[in-house]
Amino acid sequence: MLQYRAPLRDLQFLQQTWLDLNAHFQALGLVDYDSDLAQDILEQGAKFAQDVIAPLNQIGDEEGCLLQDGKVTTPGGFAQAYAQYIANGWNAMLGDVEYGGSALPYTMAVPIHECLNSANISWRLTTMLTESAILALTKHGTQKLKDTYLAKLISGEWTGTMNLTEPHAGTDLSLLSTKAESQVDGTYRISGTKIFITGGDHDWTDNIIHMVLARLSDAPPGVKGISLFLVPKMMVDKDGQLGSPNAVSVGSLEHKMGIKGSPTCVMHYDDAIGYLVGEENNGLACMFTMMNDARFQVGLEGLGTAEIAYQGSLAYACERLQSRSPSGPIEPSQKADPIIAQPDIKRMLLTQKSLAEGCRSMSLWYAKLMDIEKHGKPAEQLHASQVIAYLTPITKAFFTDIGSEAAHHGIQILGGHGYIREWGMEQLVRDNRIAQLYEGTNGIQAADLIGRKLTRSNGEYLQATHTELAGLVAKIQDLQLTAKAQQLLTDWYQTSKTLMGSSAKASASKAHDYLQYCGYQITGILWCSVLDVVREAERSPYMENKTHTGQFYLKYILPRAEHHKSLLTSAESVNEMPLDLFNLD
Amino acid sequence: MLQYRAPLRDLQFLQQTWLDLNAHFQALGLVDYDSDLAQDILEQGAKFAQDVIAPLNQIGDEEGCLLQDGKVTTPGGFAQAYAQYIANGWNAMLGDVEYGGSALPYTMAVPIHECLNSANISWRLTTMLTESAILALTKHGTQKLKDTYLAKLISGEWTGTMNLTEPHAGTDLSLLSTKAESQVDGTYRISGTKIFITGGDHDWTDNIIHMVLARLSDAPPGVKGISLFLVPKMMVDKDGQLGSPNAVSVGSLEHKMGIKGSPTCVMHYDDAIGYLVGEENNGLACMFTMMNDARFQVGLEGLGTAEIAYQGSLAYACERLQSRSPSGPIEPSQKADPIIAQPDIKRMLLTQKSLAEGCRSMSLWYAKLMDIEKHGKPAEQLHASQVIAYLTPITKAFFTDIGSEAAHHGIQILGGHGYIREWGMEQLVRDNRIAQLYEGTNGIQAADLIGRKLTRSNGEYLQATHTELAGLVAKIQDLQLTAKAQQLLTDWYQTSKTLMGSSAKASASKAHDYLQYCGYQITGILWCSVLDVVREAERSPYMENKTHTGQFYLKYILPRAEHHKSLLTSAESVNEMPLDLFNLD
Repeated sequence: MLQYRAPLRDLQFLQQTWLDLNAHFQALGLVDYDSDLAQDILEQGAKFAQDVIAPLNQIGDEEGCLLQDGKVTTPGGFAQAYAQYIANGWNAMLGDVEYGGSALPYTMAVPIHECLNSANISWRLTTMLTESAILALTKHGTQKLKDTYLAKLISGEWTGTMNLTEPHAGTDLSLLSTKAESQVDGTYRISGTKIFITGGDHDWTDNIIHMVLARLSDAPPGVKGISLFLVPKMMVDKDGQLGSPNAVSVGSLEHKMGIKGSPTCVMHYDDAIGYLVGEENNGLACMFTMMNDARFQVGLEGLGTAEIAYQGSLAYACERLQSRSPSGPIEPSQKADPIIAQPDIKRMLLTQKSLAEGCRSMSLWYAKLMDIEKHGKPAEQLHASQVIAYLTPITKAFFTDIGSEAAHHGIQILGGHGYIREWGMEQLVRDNRIAQLYEGTNGIQAADLIGRKLTRSNGEYLQATHTELAGLVAKIQDLQLTAKAQQLLTDWYQTSKTLMGSSAKASASKAHDYLQYCGYQITGILWCSVLDVVREAERSPYMENKTHTGQFYLKYILPRAEHHKSLLTSAESVNEMPLDLFNLD
Repeated sequence: MLQYRAPLRDLQFLQQTWLDLNAHFQALGLVDYDSDLAQDILEQGAKFAQDVIAPLNQIGDEEGCLLQDGKVTTPGGFAQAYAQYIANGWNAMLGDVEYGGSALPYTMAVPIHECLNSANISWRLTTMLTESAILALTKHGTQKLKDTYLAKLISGEWTGTMNLTEPHAGTDLSLLSTKAESQVDGTYRISGTKIFITGGDHDWTDNIIHMVLARLSDAPPGVKGISLFLVPKMMVDKDGQLGSPNAVSVGSLEHKMGIKGSPTCVMHYDDAIGYLVGEENNGLACMFTMMNDARFQVGLEGLGTAEIAYQGSLAYACERLQSRSPSGPIEPSQKADPIIAQPDIKRMLLTQKSLAEGCRSMSLWYAKLMDIEKHGKPAEQLHASQVIAYLTPITKAFFTDIGSEAAHHGIQILGGHGYIREWGMEQLVRDNRIAQLYEGTNGIQAADLIGRKLTRSNGEYLQATHTELAGLVAKIQDLQLTAKAQQLLTDWYQTSKTLMGSSAKASASKAHDYLQYCGYQITGILWCSVLDVVREAERSPYMENKTHTGQFYLKYILPRAEHHKSLLTSAESVNEMPLDLFNLD
């Protein structure tokens, strides 16, 4: 079984020293926060993830969820852990103060989200979706809806869900057919079937608030005819008390590769009562306002997976005695050396580690931008939102891809035992695999990056991201690191600009490699920045470790950026094969 | 559910036309065989895999195996399919004629093995391990042992297993501690526990013949003190009739990520009666004589997975309507276009296809060499055995890695449905994952390639492989393809020679990238050769498809070789991180 220990030292170094949290809070006028408070909260949140949530991960996989008499039961201990989570106020971390939330800066909350994902993606998911529902409701709900639902969603007394996908409409939401009929009392009646609904039902709370995309009978076709509705599982009366059940039911639980502790439901809405969120036919826009956040949050699943995969691999590699080091015995008194003495094992460990730590720095940088988007001056807000828009598909796809890679290295390091369920490593592959698919497949992220984010507003997002990265590079003191970072930055900027004139078809064929290129290249720039701060810090084993890890990234991992860049041209060859040649019969 | 259709056209083209089977049989004096017979047998074998074995794949995953009262039950239909398999004589394909086998050339049998693996890796495994046991017994058994056991193993009346791994001894067999005590009657008593034993027990046959590595009490330590024993589940009397049970029992079934239809057993030997195979303390060498074959066979699991993953992905991509092609609607009468119209989906399909077909050509080339090793003149046999020795770790690791990659692309193409068990795609990831681990992890294959095969006998294996590949390149008629293939060959040969002087530590750090480089580079050479034969063939949709697929490989996949080559130097940076820095506490 995997033992998770929150990487407190690395999180704190990146948060406090590299990001310079105190300066960040001061710049934004966040006078209630400082690095001591951030450290205190991080330690508590990390401890909760590590001691309460992580031990449930394997149980969740083994037990799975159960649907009986229309009710879903989650694995043993999940509901109790949730009760403790909301009692401790963790669910309210990000919520508005007005509705009982703590409104923590993202730079304080995101490291805790990472830890929760390392601990147990299945368990974390329902709370993540609740945060998404809160966001949609906060930004687009009427005052009455907010007053009725927000406080209980923020406290965690109720949870939320997001209902987008239907059997025939996933990537392409224009095809969705769930119906909404407006009623004379201003409510709507919702009918249709939704699939892949995370937390569609469970035994954690008395009520569940579903955010449902549906189509009014007189709506225009396509994505401009989609509206967003709030559909509670249990009706809520004007005093906030639960009334009768709404016409919402669970059709079945999906049989999945992983995240078995998370109830993924087929949901039926049979003339269920719903409330409009935002304007009619503007539902997709409402959904998209929270998409950046949700996609980044899914990215954190990949980061969390990479970290725990590394930890499990390292523990095994230090304990497992097998063969001798190629440079002679290092444990002569033992029958064999620990396999960490094998360079190929070290290669995989350092790959996991340098990717996890590189993505961690990107997650904190992204969190900083989210703080600025929320609390900065208007011009800063606009700038931050543009950088975030550009980075979002990268964090989602790149982080989840490296999570998958790190977990596969984990299996490989454990050898045959990596394939055995009791060891917990193969579960990481299965659990993280969904993160490359939901909230838009990683192919959709790549299309979004090259097809929208890169070109939108004449490249303003690219420009903003360049400005932001150039600021980071300018702060680097070391000449070698400056030169390296500057070269990476220039190369990325020029490569990106060159792609802006591509046709839709050419862009679509290059999308995957462009996103991968950006992921590795930007992570390279961030590593240069981190290494520069490490260089100035007091020497310690941690700092030496960090130096080696970053140098390994620059030497051994970063060449992947060059590889993907070299494929940008040849990727167009996919368009040479006529479609009718695929099927020969 | 995945529908498997054996890729008969591609198999036949590569086998009959590219490999020129008739000329091959004539050169080896295999007068009983010709291309008509090969085609007939391939069609029958493929049909059996497709119609009888493939439909059991998903059932096997869902039902798994059961251990009750010491007996293992396999999933519904598995035993019946096996009965049909042996009744049709498929189990005897490779066995010696003397013991009732058909002794088919490998060039005829290997395509059928590929099909069986595409159909159902779990089911195939037990028959594969029987083939390994037959090989070990044929090469090293006494006449009496052969007379008693070979005919029934070849017919399939009994199955065989290979018992190497113990809880503390996997990669490093020098640590194994299962004991053997010699008896006055010439038999031995075997005691110990073995893990990860495929087909350790099942409900297919009345007897199971275990090939067990154990250590005599007076044996020298390490790998020079290991002996091989044949330990039957049921004792066999001198008339070949089953007697009393031997002291062999199943401790438990492993809980695995995949291949759930295959019983992977913990086996206990409690003073069980065993018979020496080969000489005392020479057991590891006995095992190694069959290792090339077994490793190549595991490689075929990866190839089989890549093919079925492609087929499932293609079927879905042609049916699933979602969004529009970036170059305008291609199915204007439908609400959306099939997703195969998306360049990113085509990229993944062509990656699966060009890798599967490239590896298929390598599998047939390898099979041809196995035929030569068996039937050629002595000098030809030596040459073939050297090429095989060099290629074996590549086929094992490279094929299984591409199987994993292809299956992951499959999940990605299916989107959310790729994560749902009913669709069958995620099972491919789980089932193929073991192939990267057993028969020596892919890291061990890489170490074998760079540490032994490349350098052994002053590079004779490398030289032989170069000669063989140069022969292939010399036959290419097209000037462009000749130039490309020659460049790849020269680059591979020079790169390989440069590495021969590396220290053990440096080699170990470069091992992974060298194997990947070889895999992509040699597959590139083979594709050039195949494309040249395609160029000369009569034009047809199949040939056009093949041309595009091969060109896609050369343009988009082959640059991976260059990438891995570029990492050979930087890979040494793994050695810079001191081991004690990994653990900071």
